Amino acid sequence: MAKQFDVVVIGAGPGGYIAAIRAAQLGMSVACVDYWSTADGKPAPGGTCTNVGCIPSKALLQSSEHYEHAQKHLAEHGVKVEGVSLDIKQFLGRKDTVVKQNNDGILYLFKKNKVTFFHGKASFGAKVDAGWSVNVSGEQTEELVAKNVIVATGSSARALPGLDFDETQILSNDGALRLASVPKKLAVIGAGVIGLELGSVWRRLGAEVTILEGAPEFLATVDRDAAKEALKAFTKQGLTIHTGVKVGEIKKTAKKVTVPYTDAAGAEHKVEADKLIVSIGRVPNTEGLGAETIGLKLDERGFIVVDDDCATSLPGIWAVGDVVRGPMLAHKAEEEGVAVAERLAGQHPHVNFDTVPWVIYTSPEIAWVGQTEQQLKTAGRQYRSGSFPFLANGRARALGDTTGFVKVLADAKTDEVLGVHIVGPVASELIAEAVTIMEFRGAAEDIARICHAHPTLSEAMKEAALAVDTRALNF
Amino acid sequence: MAKQFDVVVIGAGPGGYIAAIRAAQLGMSVACVDYWSTADGKPAPGGTCTNVGCIPSKALLQSSEHYEHAQKHLAEHGVKVEGVSLDIKQFLGRKDTVVKQNNDGILYLFKKNKVTFFHGKASFGAKVDAGWSVNVSGEQTEELVAKNVIVATGSSARALPGLDFDETQILSNDGALRLASVPKKLAVIGAGVIGLELGSVWRRLGAEVTILEGAPEFLATVDRDAAKEALKAFTKQGLTIHTGVKVGEIKKTAKKVTVPYTDAAGAEHKVEADKLIVSIGRVPNTEGLGAETIGLKLDERGFIVVDDDCATSLPGIWAVGDVVRGPMLAHKAEEEGVAVAERLAGQHPHVNFDTVPWVIYTSPEIAWVGQTEQQLKTAGRQYRSGSFPFLANGRARALGDTTGFVKVLADAKTDEVLGVHIVGPVASELIAEAVTIMEFRGAAEDIARICHAHPTLSEAMKEAALAVDTRALNF
Repeated sequence: MAKQFDVVVIGAGPGGYIAAIRAAQLGMSVACVDYWSTADGKPAPGGTCTNVGCIPSKALLQSSEHYEHAQKHLAEHGVKVEGVSLDIKQFLGRKDTVVKQNNDGILYLFKKNKVTFFHGKASFGAKVDAGWSVNVSGEQTEELVAKNVIVATGSSARALPGLDFDETQILSNDGALRLASVPKKLAVIGAGVIGLELGSVWRRLGAEVTILEGAPEFLATVDRDAAKEALKAFTKQGLTIHTGVKVGEIKKTAKKVTVPYTDAAGAEHKVEADKLIVSIGRVPNTEGLGAETIGLKLDERGFIVVDDDCATSLPGIWAVGDVVRGPMLAHKAEEEGVAVAERLAGQHPHVNFDTVPWVIYTSPEIAWVGQTEQQLKTAGRQYRSGSFPFLANGRARALGDTTGFVKVLADAKTDEVLGVHIVGPVASELIAEAVTIMEFRGAAEDIARICHAHPTLSEAMKEAALAVDTRALNF
Repeated sequence: MAKQFDVVVIGAGPGGYIAAIRAAQLGMSVACVDYWSTADGKPAPGGTCTNVGCIPSKALLQSSEHYEHAQKHLAEHGVKVEGVSLDIKQFLGRKDTVVKQNNDGILYLFKKNKVTFFHGKASFGAKVDAGWSVNVSGEQTEELVAKNVIVATGSSARALPGLDFDETQILSNDGALRLASVPKKLAVIGAGVIGLELGSVWRRLGAEVTILEGAPEFLATVDRDAAKEALKAFTKQGLTIHTGVKVGEIKKTAKKVTVPYTDAAGAEHKVEADKLIVSIGRVPNTEGLGAETIGLKLDERGFIVVDDDCATSLPGIWAVGDVVRGPMLAHKAEEEGVAVAERLAGQHPHVNFDTVPWVIYTSPEIAWVGQTEQQLKTAGRQYRSGSFPFLANGRARALGDTTGFVKVLADAKTDEVLGVHIVGPVASELIAEAVTIMEFRGAAEDIARICHAHPTLSEAMKEAALAVDTRALNF
């Protein structure tokens, strides 16, 4: 017999599990269905983010940073070490432990919040009187019925046509997180977040990494100054990055992957590598969902069509996160998940897409919120810009990492902050202040007048805001 | 002949050099006088902060953290090292380099902003028609005259009665930053910022550190939850901290310092140590300033008496930073310095003491702004409190440092944020968001509704704010 809930959430990634918890907090009876499994078949909620995305990549970035730091930078600090070597089993094992802590954390949260978890694949059945029917198959078999269903099935790595991911030679974000040894040569197609983060991990461990990007400009959607600064840093670190290339037909033998490409000037080259990461974007996960069974509208790229409130074409069905329009970011999915749950409870939430921060967790980190200078120019907006380099920041000097800067863009007349772009140490955390300022529609002058602790990296934000008014104090 | 300026600033610490630069930006002719010297007699502007405070301590904290991390934590990450050892010359030398970068940076800023720098001791002469007369002696000898003088002479470590700092056995913050070898046993009197930071540095390098504190409670002015969490962490790291003790007569031989003390229960003990750091507070630097010559009013503790605008008892004489009332923090001095310069230019600046952040750069870092829970209780204010542990934060797990929490205190009725207390990784940077929220008199609900990048430590701030309304999502 079908099990009845107020809400069924499909997918336990950041959008789904958060929506489920919030709905439960608001008094609804909630089920959450997810098919991710651990190696031994147990539930592994958390989706791409927890299992093969944000969390494991940050664990490997951290560990690989320690490895490189031990080799190249400990000596500066007077810390002498001999024989730095990598225990890759431990390196990967630690990452697995971190992932498991997060998986278990979500299961605990489900229990605590009385969300009923089902381990299996969910697909829509027919509409029934009591609501939408959702069939669970796989690890568990159930029929669930709910008046409201939230689809949070996420996305998957896009493969190159004719080149499936085998996850041993041709790697998605998944396989790239669990190579059993450090490849001598690693090729990466796509210089986006995933390509740069995972390319950085393996470069730090000793791989010779070549990244090929089709777009003519590096990090085309990022503020030009920030992108240039990052490219300079990555190149100095030894990442080889070619933009504006056209990749030809890739050849795979038992031991090698050959990637031919035409460079921006039209010359032909090839990269021979042991492994290839393909990180050219992600596609929404709607296969097997039964969208067609119920007539749920998808767009031409396979995304579930939603309005500003995440309502789909069908009443009572909602969709959030990577499976709908907008940036494929865990925190965007979370905000949407919370908003849908609150809407179901009769509240009137709102997700402000203009203040969703972006982060690339390379070293230097890159983080930004709001508009880039090129966007402002294109829009013909009158603006003022102020930058401050970490080179002139006392904390950065004490830290030993002075790469990058903070750049603040503000309206020329009102001084309202329109965008903040950070390249440098701890950028991922510094961006929170900028988001806060923008949510309050604050001015550069506000940042400039707010007391910032000394010595902190956040002083660079204050100085960049002062620079908007050409009155930086420390540069 | 006397050299005439619009403004003479005495002292080139954070209060002084910033005041000088801001005044110059605003079109005034400015002189700045400072007596700090490098070992070879060259100017070393930056005051205590740059020379023997914030900056060198952060450099040593960073390096010593690397040393301890290399010994105890690299292995977790799969990074194997052998034979970790300390090159103390390089360890201290790097710190000296960082200090010099900051000294040189200030000299460059003076040049850039056309601030005339005088290397020497400044003291007031008589009032002359053209303004106040300031005599420079020492490295340079000059008579300066200005209508406005800003005194920013800072503070010095307070010695125990009868126990002068010799800086080899009995150490202030100065000597404690340049020990030529790691002491086997180190005693510290005073468990404040300096005692904890420098105690941590030498403990990490192998010293057995005992900290004696007279106050009955550990970090008495810090939020109790934060202080308790920090004490737990420090104790676990191996710092021995005794509070509520009464220190007896200290005995010094060529090789040992013996510190007898009575514990909180009245039992007598003693600590035998190789070195002793005395960090029991700081006294304002007014000796030799000639305050008495001109009748500049000091309070009974030697601070220059100022009003809310940093105006002293004499027209045209201002004082900022450690030499006046209020917290002895570099960024408080800077804010005051900017405010005085702007006031001289006819502006109406305001320094908001309620939103001055505090940071202790131990590991975990401790940072806070606004009121503590005990202050709210004492004031009878109705409040709500929300906390979130880094243990439940994905980024902290990936980082491998899950100590501590974020705690948000908000008004029970209006939800206005009244205080934020952070113990944990990168607390010093995370506090900037809290200061910003408080400057806008924002609510806990504001923090809760602002999108925070995932995975970041700053998500703990959002979750703590959600917890104020008992709706944390990840705990």
